[in-house]
Amino acid sequence: MGNCTANMCDRPKNTNIKFSLPGVCFVWQLSMIILFGVFVRYNEESDTHWVYTKMEKNITSDIENDFYFRYPSFQDVHVMIFVGFGFLMTFLKRYSFGAVGFNFLIAAFGIQWALLMQGQGWFHSLDPVDGKIKIGIENLINADFCVAGCLIAYGAVLGKVSPVQLLVMTLLGVTLFAVEEYIILSVLRVKDAGGSMVIHTFGAYYGLSISWVLYRPDLYKSKHMNGSVYHSDVFAMIGTLFLWMFWPSFNSAIAGHGDGQHRAAINTYLALASTVLTTVAISSLFEKTGKLDMVHIQNSTLAGGVAVGTAAEFMLMPYGSLIVGFFCGIISTMGYIFISPFLEEKLKIQDTCGIHNLHAMPGVIGGIVGAISAAAATSTVYGELGLANTFGFKGAIATRVPTVQGGYQAAGLCVALCFGIGGGILVGLVLKLPIWGDPADENCFEDEIYWEVPEDEESVPPILAYNNHMIPNKHANMTETNFAEQH
Amino acid sequence: MGNCTANMCDRPKNTNIKFSLPGVCFVWQLSMIILFGVFVRYNEESDTHWVYTKMEKNITSDIENDFYFRYPSFQDVHVMIFVGFGFLMTFLKRYSFGAVGFNFLIAAFGIQWALLMQGQGWFHSLDPVDGKIKIGIENLINADFCVAGCLIAYGAVLGKVSPVQLLVMTLLGVTLFAVEEYIILSVLRVKDAGGSMVIHTFGAYYGLSISWVLYRPDLYKSKHMNGSVYHSDVFAMIGTLFLWMFWPSFNSAIAGHGDGQHRAAINTYLALASTVLTTVAISSLFEKTGKLDMVHIQNSTLAGGVAVGTAAEFMLMPYGSLIVGFFCGIISTMGYIFISPFLEEKLKIQDTCGIHNLHAMPGVIGGIVGAISAAAATSTVYGELGLANTFGFKGAIATRVPTVQGGYQAAGLCVALCFGIGGGILVGLVLKLPIWGDPADENCFEDEIYWEVPEDEESVPPILAYNNHMIPNKHANMTETNFAEQH
Amino acid sequence: MGNCTANMCDRPKNTNIKFSLPGVCFVWQLSMIILFGVFVRYNEESDTHWVYTKMEKNITSDIENDFYFRYPSFQDVHVMIFVGFGFLMTFLKRYSFGAVGFNFLIAAFGIQWALLMQGQGWFHSLDPVDGKIKIGIENLINADFCVAGCLIAYGAVLGKVSPVQLLVMTLLGVTLFAVEEYIILSVLRVKDAGGSMVIHTFGAYYGLSISWVLYRPDLYKSKHMNGSVYHSDVFAMIGTLFLWMFWPSFNSAIAGHGDGQHRAAINTYLALASTVLTTVAISSLFEKTGKLDMVHIQNSTLAGGVAVGTAAEFMLMPYGSLIVGFFCGIISTMGYIFISPFLEEKLKIQDTCGIHNLHAMPGVIGGIVGAISAAAATSTVYGELGLANTFGFKGAIATRVPTVQGGYQAAGLCVALCFGIGGGILVGLVLKLPIWGDPADENCFEDEIYWEVPEDEESVPPILAYNNHMIPNKHANMTETNFAEQH
Repeated sequence: MGNCTANMCDRPKNTNIKFSLPGVCFVWQLSMIILFGVFVRYNEESDTHWVYTKMEKNITSDIENDFYFRYPSFQDVHVMIFVGFGFLMTFLKRYSFGAVGFNFLIAAFGIQWALLMQGQGWFHSLDPVDGKIKIGIENLINADFCVAGCLIAYGAVLGKVSPVQLLVMTLLGVTLFAVEEYIILSVLRVKDAGGSMVIHTFGAYYGLSISWVLYRPDLYKSKHMNGSVYHSDVFAMIGTLFLWMFWPSFNSAIAGHGDGQHRAAINTYLALASTVLTTVAISSLFEKTGKLDMVHIQNSTLAGGVAVGTAAEFMLMPYGSLIVGFFCGIISTMGYIFISPFLEEKLKIQDTCGIHNLHAMPGVIGGIVGAISAAAATSTVYGELGLANTFGFKGAIATRVPTVQGGYQAAGLCVALCFGIGGGILVGLVLKLPIWGDPADENCFEDEIYWEVPEDEESVPPILAYNNHMIPNKHANMTETNFAEQH
Repeated sequence: MGNCTANMCDRPKNTNIKFSLPGVCFVWQLSMIILFGVFVRYNEESDTHWVYTKMEKNITSDIENDFYFRYPSFQDVHVMIFVGFGFLMTFLKRYSFGAVGFNFLIAAFGIQWALLMQGQGWFHSLDPVDGKIKIGIENLINADFCVAGCLIAYGAVLGKVSPVQLLVMTLLGVTLFAVEEYIILSVLRVKDAGGSMVIHTFGAYYGLSISWVLYRPDLYKSKHMNGSVYHSDVFAMIGTLFLWMFWPSFNSAIAGHGDGQHRAAINTYLALASTVLTTVAISSLFEKTGKLDMVHIQNSTLAGGVAVGTAAEFMLMPYGSLIVGFFCGIISTMGYIFISPFLEEKLKIQDTCGIHNLHAMPGVIGGIVGAISAAAATSTVYGELGLANTFGFKGAIATRVPTVQGGYQAAGLCVALCFGIGGGILVGLVLKLPIWGDPADENCFEDEIYWEVPEDEESVPPILAYNNHMIPNKHANMTETNFAEQH
Repeated sequence: MGNCTANMCDRPKNTNIKFSLPGVCFVWQLSMIILFGVFVRYNEESDTHWVYTKMEKNITSDIENDFYFRYPSFQDVHVMIFVGFGFLMTFLKRYSFGAVGFNFLIAAFGIQWALLMQGQGWFHSLDPVDGKIKIGIENLINADFCVAGCLIAYGAVLGKVSPVQLLVMTLLGVTLFAVEEYIILSVLRVKDAGGSMVIHTFGAYYGLSISWVLYRPDLYKSKHMNGSVYHSDVFAMIGTLFLWMFWPSFNSAIAGHGDGQHRAAINTYLALASTVLTTVAISSLFEKTGKLDMVHIQNSTLAGGVAVGTAAEFMLMPYGSLIVGFFCGIISTMGYIFISPFLEEKLKIQDTCGIHNLHAMPGVIGGIVGAISAAAATSTVYGELGLANTFGFKGAIATRVPTVQGGYQAAGLCVALCFGIGGGILVGLVLKLPIWGDPADENCFEDEIYWEVPEDEESVPPILAYNNHMIPNKHANMTETNFAEQH
């Protein structure tokens, strides 16, 4: 590689990001340092004054520090963000560097902005006394959650955008997320422990809308790169499995101490198990001789975790979780088979990873399941105190009842959809400007554009190395043109 | 690929699972939903009534919820089940989809059935008041443990069975496991924290017996596929390492709170470290010029974790753990070199992953070590209270003494062996029926049969695609010299 | 492969380790068993007498056992040692077995020796009553930490030494580490929670000095093997990400209970996020058209975690952590671009993984940041009690003040440097003896020397296997028939 092929030399687009990418990174990181210097401090549990806090609050043991309630879940969520999302997207034959590398970049970029914008940042609980944002372990989890929305959106545009576009998309995405989350969680007082609405619905529609605005009619020119090879599919399974295994931690990470976290983990575990079975069933049913398709196994098996997110903390009951997983496996896999081609052909939405099937539909289902199960909650099932604890019926909303809460939950879903679609269209228009160094239609899904790719036996089109009587086969198609030019 | 080669076109067996696989998945999952609806509820620590439980039991903090004692270990066990077992089996050159994908399927399938059958399911502690099974974090761990037995068994038949056979094998395996575990743990009151007997001995003999019944005399026809390639060996190391690292969590996950979990983790850590050294020593000693064999490093390094399972919670002493690991590394590696060929040629047991060396022999050793160390326990070493806590000498067996406990431990090992061998033969006979869509002898160890496999440069033997005039390019440099020498 | 090529047949060096490797492993492991038998016992939290300890100390709950404070962090550190370091070094095209396998061997070997030598081993706190070393979870973490120093050193000599040399290097490295750590932590009473000085500075200079003594002027003969291929770079990202994600656990694992661990995690999280941005910026800025280089992404993104190690527990402030990360990303990446070539050409230090950029420079920076932030500590920021807790101003050093502590911190850095450089030179001289079976200059970075490597389509330069006269070999069997059919 490294040789100038015909395609690359006369390519119509300038993908040089030698100044824009470092520029954005430096300016951004310097801004973060200044803003953190002005606004961010440790909270009372991560400050050396904790020793005084313990005295004041009569806390007898350090194990009561929130760190010990949440750190194991935090680390699981962290793995989902960086390894889970990163490796899930390595399935393309020649975009693994971009998948795992740009995922890494935008997550590290986004979590800093997220700490300022959300969780207990500017929008939530600026300390009333000193005007500072006080951070602890829960903020780190919330920052990871916030970035998850942008990484979901990345799935829709994977391989078709430049890293500079991704940074802009993340910057604006985190900002939109923070406002949306503030409205849903703090204004409407909606419960969404696992973020079916706040994270998945928002993130997915944000990404799909951007992809719709950035529609590439000539994307077929990169069609030969838009697929997997054997080992790239195995790499993607690393992402799938870490997402699948740690999803109970995702949905329980910021749930209530004690039974809240406990129940959220159980519900998610069950929903995910159920999803695997129906995903396999549908995948097998629609392929010749019942063969399974790796795309479904890599993605649809996760749909149950998305859909059980909102209600994970509720008394959904073990069988309720199984039912949610059951339907999501079916719907998500059918989505890959029937809906994705429709979206691409009719609605002009090119969705590289199929986030519509993995995040959008299951996210909306999750919001609906949450609204229904909230509306149906009774003090018989929850106990009076349990009901108040679970739904947060105290303070300003001490008199709210479950049926009303159900209505607010549904309203929250609408807010997430509006922010996702509206925000995505606006951001898409910004990203359409011809200044971001995105790849030409014939160079999509190709690491060569933004990465130094090692010379590699496997990557050298073998035709250049050895040849003579061309034996036509499917594989040779992609190199034949170059071959013809050389002879 | 995807072309019809001679072998595949005239294959004598029908591997179409288009209806059987979806059928089993749907029927099964619907049954689970119904059974969970009738029988399964949250336990007192995962129910919203936890707030009342705390009051009644005078519990001052949510951190006393069992969730915080066991959740980190649970997640480690979860990783072992899905990534550990799954990737360990990806070593075959062309069966990585089947290894990691079917492992995923049968684990997700098995854990649901296991929640009903074991742990505190039907066999253990159906709530006497309302007849429900009450689940919490410990049940999730037990369900994962139960499935581990079936995944071990999968190792023996890897590449030679259809996914439908695997589901049947898991369904019956979990059932047998639950009965066996009930007898060993609840009737005989045997201690087996890490499951050397209950999980490993049972699982391994179950799998070996099935493989014996399903013996394929013409398996040599797939011999060229029954090996690794460079990158598949690296993928397998992901499985090995996650199993190795998290084995201390496996053996301590359901051990007693406090010192029990603490000691189990230490003992396992030490036994595993010791095993690595002797595995390397034996591997090097029996290969020409002392080269190491990846098969040994991938598998035998784990034998110490298996063998220390039963006694992990006991006062085995740090040096005792090292001794267990020392011998298991030797025995397991020697097993791969000498015993596996013997089993295949003389006893007609075809054991793809060598589970006899990794689980069967170390499991039996673990049972024996457990029996001896239980029989040798004294109140001088344990303290009176420590002895009672560790071996559960209370209630009906308050007067049992260590020597008697040693006898019961040995009896437990026999039960595990009987269930493994007897159950395996019966299940093997069921799986021998010609209705399950298993592959022909010449198509074993081949993902192509049950998966849509991507077209792939690497898989096309280059000779078929191109050959003759050499075009020099950078890539060719490294081989040109050699080439010149040969011509 | 497996064929004898010209290079290998007349190679001047004997790489046969058939007796030396098993010999060292056996002797070593037997010694460990004896020494553990004489010296090592469970500590009061992992012994069955814990039930009495609780009574004596009036501890009301098992959750107060140190196990629950540290086990999740321990497992994260464990993953960093075995998967993190192991996979980070798999980037070479044909040394992945050696990277992950020898890393596994020397870590399992080193942790046993480390338990005796450091943490609360011989050098720290031999029980005054019975002369035993009492181990618990903190010792396991310290053993892992100790081994980390040797694994860092392995990075400098990767691909150029035999496994026997690695074992000797680890044995002596752990010994030096224990003495160095004892002087720094116990004599000078220096704080170094994340080991910037004790682990990274020592380990890196130890490895660089060894590499300097073992300088190979003819290493260019293996130049074609000293690089990556596409998939080996993706494997290396597994190592990078697990190191990156779990670094907050590394730096907080042995920090003080409560706010200490909490703050160390936050500081590390922030420093690492910042490093990613500046690494990407510099990598892009110095490559043509702004392309990113995988070497930088794999390594320099981690530099912030190294550099924040010493001060992680201090009130470094969130913006302080970002600043540390900011500069380390720049310095480390510049190191790969400018300093590594200089070291190799002018100073004759061949540093395969670039540990000078990832561990040496950031480690020294970490020591300096620690000294400055200790010297600048005030009771206004920390609170009186917080200051004493954080810096351990009690007992013999109850009257020490922050400025003096700063001086001691700087002295600690000098000790680490001296032990690293001095120890490395001495050990290098030992390893230069011609008895260890190291590879010839033309066989470096090649798994074939110490591993049974599978025959592999990808690895066989296809020109050797097929073209022209078919050379029959095992691999060719499966394609010969098809080939014949087509011609």
